[in-house]
Amino acid sequence: MTPPNDRLLRALRREPVDRTPVWFMRQAGRSLPEYRALRGEREILASIRDPEEAVEITLQPLRRMPLDAAVVFGDIVTPIAAIGLPVRVEAGRGPVLDEPIRSLAGVARLRPLEAETDEPYVLETVRLAAKELDVPLIGFAGAPFTLASYLVEGGASRAHARTKALMLGEPSTWDALMRALVAIVLPHLRAQVSAGASALQVFDSWVGALAPPAYRAHVQPHMRAVFAGLADLGVPVIHSGVGTGELLADMAAAGGDAIGVDHRVPLDEAWGRIGGPGERAIQGNLDPAALLAPWDAVETEALDVLARAGDRDGHVFNLGHGVLPSTPVGTLQRLVDLVHERTERTT
Amino acid sequence: MTPPNDRLLRALRREPVDRTPVWFMRQAGRSLPEYRALRGEREILASIRDPEEAVEITLQPLRRMPLDAAVVFGDIVTPIAAIGLPVRVEAGRGPVLDEPIRSLAGVARLRPLEAETDEPYVLETVRLAAKELDVPLIGFAGAPFTLASYLVEGGASRAHARTKALMLGEPSTWDALMRALVAIVLPHLRAQVSAGASALQVFDSWVGALAPPAYRAHVQPHMRAVFAGLADLGVPVIHSGVGTGELLADMAAAGGDAIGVDHRVPLDEAWGRIGGPGERAIQGNLDPAALLAPWDAVETEALDVLARAGDRDGHVFNLGHGVLPSTPVGTLQRLVDLVHERTERTT
Repeated sequence: MTPPNDRLLRALRREPVDRTPVWFMRQAGRSLPEYRALRGEREILASIRDPEEAVEITLQPLRRMPLDAAVVFGDIVTPIAAIGLPVRVEAGRGPVLDEPIRSLAGVARLRPLEAETDEPYVLETVRLAAKELDVPLIGFAGAPFTLASYLVEGGASRAHARTKALMLGEPSTWDALMRALVAIVLPHLRAQVSAGASALQVFDSWVGALAPPAYRAHVQPHMRAVFAGLADLGVPVIHSGVGTGELLADMAAAGGDAIGVDHRVPLDEAWGRIGGPGERAIQGNLDPAALLAPWDAVETEALDVLARAGDRDGHVFNLGHGVLPSTPVGTLQRLVDLVHERTERTT
Repeated sequence: MTPPNDRLLRALRREPVDRTPVWFMRQAGRSLPEYRALRGEREILASIRDPEEAVEITLQPLRRMPLDAAVVFGDIVTPIAAIGLPVRVEAGRGPVLDEPIRSLAGVARLRPLEAETDEPYVLETVRLAAKELDVPLIGFAGAPFTLASYLVEGGASRAHARTKALMLGEPSTWDALMRALVAIVLPHLRAQVSAGASALQVFDSWVGALAPPAYRAHVQPHMRAVFAGLADLGVPVIHSGVGTGELLADMAAAGGDAIGVDHRVPLDEAWGRIGGPGERAIQGNLDPAALLAPWDAVETEALDVLARAGDRDGHVFNLGHGVLPSTPVGTLQRLVDLVHERTERTT
C-alpha cells in the first residue's frame, strides 16, 4: 500500500520527487528522551515483543520531525530469538549468545522461521504502526553475514576472527550456516511486507570486514538468494553496510533497489561504483559522528552530501550508520528541515 | 647501521632481495606463551619502562622463527605517558585517560617530548635490543590522528565521534592538538633511530574512520610534517593504517617509503593506488583473522597475497593488522617459512 507521503518509495524507484526524502537509521532509539523514558531498564527484546510499546517507539521520532519514513522498532536478532535460540541483548554490549555456533551441529540448532507463529508480535507491530502513518514503514533484517558474525563470535566483535576462520577453514559448514540464515531472514522480511511495510532494508552492517574475493565466494550467493526471494513482493529494498567501499559493486550485483553507503566514500564516487543514478538508487551518507558537532559544521557536511547527490533522482538522505545515542535531537530536527528546504524541486 | 640481514631495508627501498622479508605487527605479544609468562599481570607500561623485560619481549619472536625484523616492544601511548599525562593501559580495553582532552586548555596539558629525559628506558631498550639482533629493529609511533582519538575519547572507540566532532566543530583546537602531537611523535621516532633502530613505522591505525576530504583537510598536513621531520635520518619509514582503502593515495602523498595496507583491498589493487611498485613499497596484507583457520586455508590466503605481489621489488610480507592473541604460534612459524620458500629469487 502506498502512503500519502511516498517520497521514499519514489526515490528508491528513481522517480522524480518534490523533495529528497530523509530518514535516519536508529531514528527510533536512544537519542530520544521519550524513548529512554518509555523503555526504562526493560530488556530490548521484551520491548520488541510488546506491540503496544514497539508501535509507540516506532512513531516517536515522527512526532518530533517530518521524517519521510518510519522504521519498525526491532533488533537484528529478533528473528534469531524468535526461533528459540537463547540470545539476549545487553546494554553497551549488544547481542550475546552463551553458546556460539561454530559447527554443523551448531547450525542444526537453527530452523526456518515461521513468522506468523514464531514472531506474531512483529506482525502486530507492523500492522498497528502502518495504520498510524502517512509515510512508508520500513521493515528490516540483518543480512546473513552480519547475523553469522554474532552467532559465531557469541557477540559483537571488531575482528570477526572466528567468523572468518570458519568461513575460510570450513566452507561447507559456513555455507550451511548462511543457508540456514537465509531461511530465517527471508520469512522475517516477507512477513513484515505482508503486515504493511512498504519498503525493506537489509543491513549487512559488518560485511565491510571482508575483502572482495571473500565476499564474492562466501557471501554474495546468499545475498542473491535473499533478493531473489523478495522480488515478487514488489516493494523496494535497500541493501546497506558500513565500511563497504571496496564491496559496493559486488553488493549492487547481489541486489537491492538502493545501496546504503557510509561516509567513507564521497556520495558521488559511491554512486558511480554501484552503476550510477541510471542503474541504482543510493542512500546515505552523512557521518553520524558529525552530528555531535555544532550546527554550522553539521550543515556544511550535510550540504556537501546534497551537492554530491545533485538534483538527480534516486537519492535518499540518511546517515552512513545509525544515530549515535548522544546525538542532540535538535540537530536531527534541523537536519530534516535543511534537507527538505534545500532539495525542493520547482518542477 | 645495517644489520647482516637487510632484506627488510632493501625491500622498503624497492631494491632486489633474495627472499621477500616477513615480519608481523604485534609479533612480540600475547600470542606467545613465553610473553604471557614473562609479563604475568604486570601493567604493560611498567614492562615498557623496564628495558631488561622490554628487550626480552622484543627478542622472543625471533627465537621462535626467522623473522626479517624485530619491532621495539612498546605501546602507542608510551610517549604520551612519558610527558606525564595520566594514562593507563587496561587489559581488554586498551589505553584509558580519565581526563580526556577536548579543549584548548586540554591541549595545553601536552608538551613536546624530550626523549632522552622523558623516556630514557625507550632508548635503552632500543640500544640493548639492536645489539642482539642480526635483523633490522623497527621503531614505531602512533600517528597524531590515532593518538588524538584516544586522547579525545578517553579510550578506544568504534565511532570516534567526539574526535570527529572536535575536528569539524573546532578546527583551530584540533589543529593545535595535532601540532602538539607531532611535537611528541617526532622526537619519539627520532630518538629510536638515534639509539639504533634502522627503520620506522608510523601507525595511523584508526584513520580509516575518516572520509578523504576530512583526511586531506585535518590530518594530511600534520602527517606531512611528521615525514618531513624524519627525512634527514635516512632510514626507511612505513606508513600504515587499517580500513584505509579510500585514503591510500592521500596517505602516500603525505609520505612514507612504504604504505602498510590491510586485507580489505587486494594487494595489487592497493599497490596501484599508492603509485605502483615504481613509486612506493607496500607492506601487507594478509587478514590476521585468517590465521585462526586450519593451515591449508592460511596457506591459500598467503599464496594469494604473494601472487598479487608477484616477484616485484618492494613488498614486505605482513598481516593487515596486528597478530590476534589467539593465533597459534605454529601458524606464524609456518607462514614465515612459506613466504621465504616461495619467494626465493634465483638471481
